[in-house]
Amino acid sequence: MSPLTLTTDFGERDGYGGILKGVIAQINPQIPVIDLTHTIPPQNIAAGRFCLMNAYPYFPTGTVHLAVVDPGVGSHRRAIAVQLAEGYFVGPDNGLISGILSLSPAIHAVVLTNKNYWRVPQPSTTFHGRDIFAPVAAHLASGVPLANFGDSISIESLVSLPLPRLTQTPEAIAGCIQYIDVFGNLITNIPQQALLEKSQKIQFIHLGNHQIPWGQTYSDAPFGEAIALIGSHGWLEIAVNGGNAQQQLAVALGDSVQINPLF
Amino acid sequence: MSPLTLTTDFGERDGYGGILKGVIAQINPQIPVIDLTHTIPPQNIAAGRFCLMNAYPYFPTGTVHLAVVDPGVGSHRRAIAVQLAEGYFVGPDNGLISGILSLSPAIHAVVLTNKNYWRVPQPSTTFHGRDIFAPVAAHLASGVPLANFGDSISIESLVSLPLPRLTQTPEAIAGCIQYIDVFGNLITNIPQQALLEKSQKIQFIHLGNHQIPWGQTYSDAPFGEAIALIGSHGWLEIAVNGGNAQQQLAVALGDSVQINPLF
Amino acid sequence: MSPLTLTTDFGERDGYGGILKGVIAQINPQIPVIDLTHTIPPQNIAAGRFCLMNAYPYFPTGTVHLAVVDPGVGSHRRAIAVQLAEGYFVGPDNGLISGILSLSPAIHAVVLTNKNYWRVPQPSTTFHGRDIFAPVAAHLASGVPLANFGDSISIESLVSLPLPRLTQTPEAIAGCIQYIDVFGNLITNIPQQALLEKSQKIQFIHLGNHQIPWGQTYSDAPFGEAIALIGSHGWLEIAVNGGNAQQQLAVALGDSVQINPLF
Repeated sequence: MSPLTLTTDFGERDGYGGILKGVIAQINPQIPVIDLTHTIPPQNIAAGRFCLMNAYPYFPTGTVHLAVVDPGVGSHRRAIAVQLAEGYFVGPDNGLISGILSLSPAIHAVVLTNKNYWRVPQPSTTFHGRDIFAPVAAHLASGVPLANFGDSISIESLVSLPLPRLTQTPEAIAGCIQYIDVFGNLITNIPQQALLEKSQKIQFIHLGNHQIPWGQTYSDAPFGEAIALIGSHGWLEIAVNGGNAQQQLAVALGDSVQINPLF
Repeated sequence: MSPLTLTTDFGERDGYGGILKGVIAQINPQIPVIDLTHTIPPQNIAAGRFCLMNAYPYFPTGTVHLAVVDPGVGSHRRAIAVQLAEGYFVGPDNGLISGILSLSPAIHAVVLTNKNYWRVPQPSTTFHGRDIFAPVAAHLASGVPLANFGDSISIESLVSLPLPRLTQTPEAIAGCIQYIDVFGNLITNIPQQALLEKSQKIQFIHLGNHQIPWGQTYSDAPFGEAIALIGSHGWLEIAVNGGNAQQQLAVALGDSVQINPLF
Repeated sequence: MSPLTLTTDFGERDGYGGILKGVIAQINPQIPVIDLTHTIPPQNIAAGRFCLMNAYPYFPTGTVHLAVVDPGVGSHRRAIAVQLAEGYFVGPDNGLISGILSLSPAIHAVVLTNKNYWRVPQPSTTFHGRDIFAPVAAHLASGVPLANFGDSISIESLVSLPLPRLTQTPEAIAGCIQYIDVFGNLITNIPQQALLEKSQKIQFIHLGNHQIPWGQTYSDAPFGEAIALIGSHGWLEIAVNGGNAQQQLAVALGDSVQINPLF
């Protein structure tokens, strides 16, 4: 049986993630449930999108990814389930799925209107994770066909939360910091593919007033100094060897990063 | 096989929760173990009581709930196992069980005196979770009858940690904040049932100097403003749409909440 | 099937630990995976060594312990797998294994050079946990013989990170604080065995300017006061009943602790 992963902003402390697992176990105790994270910064859809995208390639085909970062819970945003080439997404239609859609095409999408697969016909207005998404995900992981959960919707209609724009010219690449991990490593929106041919010729990248040398691994920089490299996620990343780049370089999400000149 | 849940104040960092899972796996590696939380505020029995009560209804019948928030470890407080209508509790007799007892009647209670089911005959004086509660819970989840673990005790003798008192008159309801979750949402001790008939007539609730409008979901309030609603737990809850009510309203556990006048 | 435990400094927030579980599930979804901790302080090998040592005795024979606290990732430190008397270690050769080696002799060690068991032939230079250690651990837990993963290396060649030195004379014992847990309890490097015969005669221990009374359990001290006892880990430990000893006594890792005079 394929795993079911959980990505939420529920926090670790109050047991809300455990309640999702209880609901899943009530439906099918055989499903292996894997926590991706329950500490997405509250209501930060972009961070959830990134973590899902980052983890998606490492799970078995058929894995169900349940994601709840849902500032619009109880409003008119749609609840959806989507079949992708290598797995499934279940969650709110607010752009959370955008990252994995950039990796894997969607095949079929439905809106979760069939109350037979909800936990109760009158769900809480504030906890659709428990009352709609977790039961649907558990039934989906147990083999219920996607079409049973509600009407089909067009894939084009899914809410998209695109990455910040990347600018490439023959002379330069300009992007920004799209995610900062718990170590303070700065992950940009400049993908590996944009750099590969040129990576032999890169000496520095620019981040605000900082000129940061290019390398292969954290320890290519002296201890306590910054380095730019292709990170394990496949994006240009800026780190400090043995330290915290966010704090040391005093930067924030969205700050711009430039590689210029390339030659 | 029914799940075994863990609720502790051990924290995430030091691996103490993982040690409980090792002890359980040594006895029966087939038991599915689910973390409710390991970050109950240290020695805060009331918070543990609330989280257990909140999660209990969402687990399969027969689930064993192992809970260790145990400031009295090594003193004379009893170690107990209790059979409830839909599951089991294993932990210290200090009131942790009080919340789930308000939902589900106790059927049989024993004191854990049979050392054959302890991990070692001389348990650590500071870690009964590892040496007494985890092995008993693992044996219980594996089918050992409750009576084997020790002498029966009366259900009336269990230590009770009741909720703070709620006052209801025809004109008003007065309660208090019983729990604050990691988002800063304020969960009161005023249950849904006390409000249902009257909820059409409620316009505001009072918390200190704040008059907070009544609604159905977080997004009924403008972004950044407070709202009172029936939360997913089934209690009157006060939240800030997109924000942290605890910080914004500068309130604390136990602060009083009033609904007045109702009509 | 024996469990596979995870001990890392990846943090909880970014889903890196979940990615390890995905990689393991891609190889063998039947392996029960248990988190010991993902919040070892970043790059703190000594803390990782302690948590592994502390948990090791409580897991079933044959358990595979995957540990990644790896400041040298991408440099020339070796990647290893080691068979111990009761289980296996997989991780970097940087001393992380030293604690469990003090409990359980090593039987066979190999360096992980066989790329057939890596996730990809060109692993990320910054995430060997995902690309080398997790796949090797999953194959090992699935029954692949240790010798398949690479060439044997001598057990004497493993990098050792010994405990800070302990000094014992007939009149006194001098050690230090080797670990501070999330409660602020101070765990020294003075083992239970050094104290057992003498424990009847100990009245106080000395930590900086503090003279701390000796006891059996936390509640032997008045609420809010410090006590020294043999902790659940089997080491002399200093705690504050109902409080945080690290904050209250203003001490740090490595501070010296003395028991003098013993008689």
